[in-house]
Amino acid sequence: MGVALRSYGEPVSASAAVVTVPIPQLRTALVRALVRAGVAEDEAHLQAENLLEGDLRGHPSHGARRLPLLVERIHRGLVTSGVPPTMTWTTESVLEVDGRDGLGAVVAHQAIDEISDRARSTGIALACVRKAHHVGMLAPHVERIAQGGMIAIAMTTSEALVHPWGGTKALLGTNPLGIAIPTGRADAPFVLDMSTAAVSRGRILDHAERGLPLPPGWAVDDEGTPATDPATAQAISPFGGPKGFALGLALELLVAQLTQTEVGARVHGTLDATEPVTKGDVFLAVSLERLGIAMGGPDILGYLEELRGSSADPATPVLIPGDRARVARERHTRDGVHLSREVWEGVRRLADRKGSTT
Amino acid sequence: MGVALRSYGEPVSASAAVVTVPIPQLRTALVRALVRAGVAEDEAHLQAENLLEGDLRGHPSHGARRLPLLVERIHRGLVTSGVPPTMTWTTESVLEVDGRDGLGAVVAHQAIDEISDRARSTGIALACVRKAHHVGMLAPHVERIAQGGMIAIAMTTSEALVHPWGGTKALLGTNPLGIAIPTGRADAPFVLDMSTAAVSRGRILDHAERGLPLPPGWAVDDEGTPATDPATAQAISPFGGPKGFALGLALELLVAQLTQTEVGARVHGTLDATEPVTKGDVFLAVSLERLGIAMGGPDILGYLEELRGSSADPATPVLIPGDRARVARERHTRDGVHLSREVWEGVRRLADRKGSTT
Repeated sequence: MGVALRSYGEPVSASAAVVTVPIPQLRTALVRALVRAGVAEDEAHLQAENLLEGDLRGHPSHGARRLPLLVERIHRGLVTSGVPPTMTWTTESVLEVDGRDGLGAVVAHQAIDEISDRARSTGIALACVRKAHHVGMLAPHVERIAQGGMIAIAMTTSEALVHPWGGTKALLGTNPLGIAIPTGRADAPFVLDMSTAAVSRGRILDHAERGLPLPPGWAVDDEGTPATDPATAQAISPFGGPKGFALGLALELLVAQLTQTEVGARVHGTLDATEPVTKGDVFLAVSLERLGIAMGGPDILGYLEELRGSSADPATPVLIPGDRARVARERHTRDGVHLSREVWEGVRRLADRKGSTT
Repeated sequence: MGVALRSYGEPVSASAAVVTVPIPQLRTALVRALVRAGVAEDEAHLQAENLLEGDLRGHPSHGARRLPLLVERIHRGLVTSGVPPTMTWTTESVLEVDGRDGLGAVVAHQAIDEISDRARSTGIALACVRKAHHVGMLAPHVERIAQGGMIAIAMTTSEALVHPWGGTKALLGTNPLGIAIPTGRADAPFVLDMSTAAVSRGRILDHAERGLPLPPGWAVDDEGTPATDPATAQAISPFGGPKGFALGLALELLVAQLTQTEVGARVHGTLDATEPVTKGDVFLAVSLERLGIAMGGPDILGYLEELRGSSADPATPVLIPGDRARVARERHTRDGVHLSREVWEGVRRLADRKGSTT
């Protein structure tokens, strides 16, 4: 397996024994683990909610599973806490944010507060964030902006895991795109959060651990041939062939250029435990209210219902982006989340300060 | 074939006899045809260049082939000329544009001039355009913004041709996305211009005319099964499965909301000859110079070369978005473009005012 696709020590297997953890218990443990690692109380709460959202929405790769690596980075001094980001309005509508190596969720939260406030008067505001750690899922960030009656776009770069179309080497991040649009129903904004990779690294690692072959289209070997054996996988494929590659590359360049951060193999800090963070995040907010535009304008809710009802199979409605995550979130909030025993014991160990990752 | 996929009288076949037309000759004919249809001289030049760019860049579906339909819409009074768009700065950075049924290329040109000028002082400017006709390829528009040292994003909606993932009916436009990013080399900005459909309507019509089967993944029949017989094709598939659908839908909602235009089957005016235009265009410009960001910052040119050189097959470099169009444009500018005899004769007929489309 290519270096980029190796596990960095985090547990990945979905086949391991699973425990159901009530949300309040998981939240408390995450906060305690972060505080015991030296994170300020208020920042620990924000970062814990960010990880929690990954598990709540059914994307455990962005959930509690990420805690051990984050704590290790904190112990190594790569992540700071209690150091407020430097936020500079370069122009009235463009905010430059130096995260000063702060927690991703914390810096993003502050940047988003700033641009949301600003967009209420200017109509539009853009935040360009560098030196902040992993931002977690984009969905909660853009959803928060949309709840203020604004259209939101979020982009973030990450370690090179994806090969260019026709190539063999991992030279692009999974470069996700988040878009939220108010629909006029506060509890149901439209929320897109998608990676430009065909599949997550976590799913490839999971297949490797379980000895399962990879479906064609997930990854390539060092000759650029679809890798069915996880051991030969060198890089994840972009989704949708050349167009997915094109989109991922555009996002890589756009974020790097606006945040003055790195591209390709020079992006570090969200998967490793040793490198300073060199990725960037971009957030855009456009206030519909300020522009005098009615939310949900061209009957967005009716249109989304029309789409849902247009399925080829009446038993299975068309899924609108965000539908699956919304259902998962409701169920998990009520019933708790399913974590592998290994992940949950890792969180508890860090929360109880028995043992250490360093 | 589904209604949405039918030809509206425009010639589509690539199998017909082909003629090579020098660019000055095609330009002159396009301008004359537009002027004779009643378009003001300066507007005719802008619109002709826009059509020309489609052919020059190797996308004839956005080229001279579109002239007859455009002229017919002009004759029917659906397209106006000499009526300047109403442009209102709702805030310092957000421009609302009512195209007043003007030519797409003309309205876009003016809107882009406005936001480019504005972004030079505000850093960022957004144009939300309604009631303008077909905008043509997005590439020339975003490229023009990027030539001013700015990052550009363009989005536009169009008639419903694409089915939602899991659906059967054409309920989304092909909703293309244009992104241009300065690289520090004025003659080679990064330019992405991609539709969110798996394939263009033109290619499906072309296969139908030539009696060729459709490759799976291009379209579905009325049961949602991949259509290999063009006669059973009901809707074009989104590229990249559920993610391509998600992206296309996000763009549909985003444009409709910002421009206060229509969604889904209520979008008209770029393929038919009878309906008032109800699609929208969005353009965003971010001035790197104003933000104090060096163009081509994280060695974008070097990175793009690294990508090009990372091909699995050394004989075939990885294609960067825009590469193919750039080469085609140079060749066609020098050698002329290949048009089907039918298209070229249609243009000449309109230019010479022999015959009429109405």
